[in-house]
Amino acid sequence: MAFPWLKGHGTENDFVLLPDADGSLHGALEPEFVAALCHRRRGIGADGVLRVIRANSLRAIDASIPVTDAEWFMDYRNADGSTSEMCGNGIRVFARYLIEAGLADNPITIGTRAGDRVVAANGDGTYSATMGSADIRGTSKVRANGRAWEAQDIRMGNPHAVAFVEDLADAGSLTEAPEHDPEVYPEGVNVEFVVRQAAGHLAMRVHERGSGETRSCGTGACAAAVAAMIADGAERPDSYVVEVPGGTLGVTWQADGELVLSGPAEIVASGELEWLN
Amino acid sequence: MAFPWLKGHGTENDFVLLPDADGSLHGALEPEFVAALCHRRRGIGADGVLRVIRANSLRAIDASIPVTDAEWFMDYRNADGSTSEMCGNGIRVFARYLIEAGLADNPITIGTRAGDRVVAANGDGTYSATMGSADIRGTSKVRANGRAWEAQDIRMGNPHAVAFVEDLADAGSLTEAPEHDPEVYPEGVNVEFVVRQAAGHLAMRVHERGSGETRSCGTGACAAAVAAMIADGAERPDSYVVEVPGGTLGVTWQADGELVLSGPAEIVASGELEWLN
Repeated sequence: MAFPWLKGHGTENDFVLLPDADGSLHGALEPEFVAALCHRRRGIGADGVLRVIRANSLRAIDASIPVTDAEWFMDYRNADGSTSEMCGNGIRVFARYLIEAGLADNPITIGTRAGDRVVAANGDGTYSATMGSADIRGTSKVRANGRAWEAQDIRMGNPHAVAFVEDLADAGSLTEAPEHDPEVYPEGVNVEFVVRQAAGHLAMRVHERGSGETRSCGTGACAAAVAAMIADGAERPDSYVVEVPGGTLGVTWQADGELVLSGPAEIVASGELEWLN
Repeated sequence: MAFPWLKGHGTENDFVLLPDADGSLHGALEPEFVAALCHRRRGIGADGVLRVIRANSLRAIDASIPVTDAEWFMDYRNADGSTSEMCGNGIRVFARYLIEAGLADNPITIGTRAGDRVVAANGDGTYSATMGSADIRGTSKVRANGRAWEAQDIRMGNPHAVAFVEDLADAGSLTEAPEHDPEVYPEGVNVEFVVRQAAGHLAMRVHERGSGETRSCGTGACAAAVAAMIADGAERPDSYVVEVPGGTLGVTWQADGELVLSGPAEIVASGELEWLN
């Protein structure tokens, strides 16, 4: 099986991009293949796969895909082969690919399983993506490294549990998933451990369901910023800087309630790949 | 810059193969480029690069390359861009590529910085490679995880320090290099932590200079087996099974004193890559 591909990353959250405008890869994109491709020693290696497909082509295959006027749809797959609603770092890389390939104008509207998103190239190497509104819920406990924290339940298209910690090392090695309340998160959850660096300035680590601890998570940065905004109340700044292990992101809460995530998007290689495994 | 490449692994010790018969990639193969290619998030990701070059082509560029009658030379680069003498897992993948591409007969003699090696395809998916003789020296201390062990100094073309431990977890996370005696190993060292499973059956972890902890190290498996052979004295079996995190290897001490390492060799993908970084 041979196909075009690219490798890219946003703040070291890294992806294999599979350009598949007409959906002809569909039969091959079994979860087992995606997991094999993403395996860092037995495959190519990535946090996930961004399949670049026309929205109409994907809806013709899968009627559960949201209706959209967007030309392109980000069909996101986790490293274990499961699908995910949205990826805030992936969508910047996805947009950069389409804009630079001349396949889309700037800004571009992109369909995702969490709804439509708009991504703009800022001209300085960073891209800004609308992330929808936060669905702010209650709290529950998360546990890691033999410790427990109260965590804010925030939905950004996908579920998050945000725990403020005194030190990012408090969560331990995170080689295993933190424990969460399965009644609150029956479908699993991304867990963010967050420290405050200064006013409007956070640092975090994240454990993503299906991928393990990653260098960055865009929706997780938004969830962390929203949890800080809640705590900061009327005093809150308009924008938060969120340091992740792989770089720096910015989160802005727009007047209309929508969050915007900004950060770098890099495409490091492209080519044709023949899969021999 | 565009070039052909393959991704392969032996017991999850993984490599980017760069077919470069005539050495035309030479100007591009700076340490910085190799390190960028091997970075698992900002690049493609691998434990090292196997440049597949004709021995005559490499000697024309680099007079320090050993004289050899071998047609092909394994120009091995670590993930940090430095060169290494030999790689016992890499050479099986290297041989498989050349034999399957019809560029070499089975068995094949391959030049390396540690001298010539012969690799045979066994017909069952495994490959056996001559690894030269062990240069058995003294002992020195290695330290990790706040503990210290006496380690056997064994040279397999590259330097090894083999420490027998009670439990593979004793060495801790190995996110940092174990400490070694710089007077014994001024050029750095690969450190193996080894437990005995049964007669002729070992399990080990390895920290490779330049690459960190890896899933497997072929010369390290040989060094571990030799250290066990020394301890086993006249009682020693002819062959040792060495479990590594990424699979299973076999080590045989031939009557002529040469070690032979056997194990799987997988090539998972091939293609043309355009490097955009």
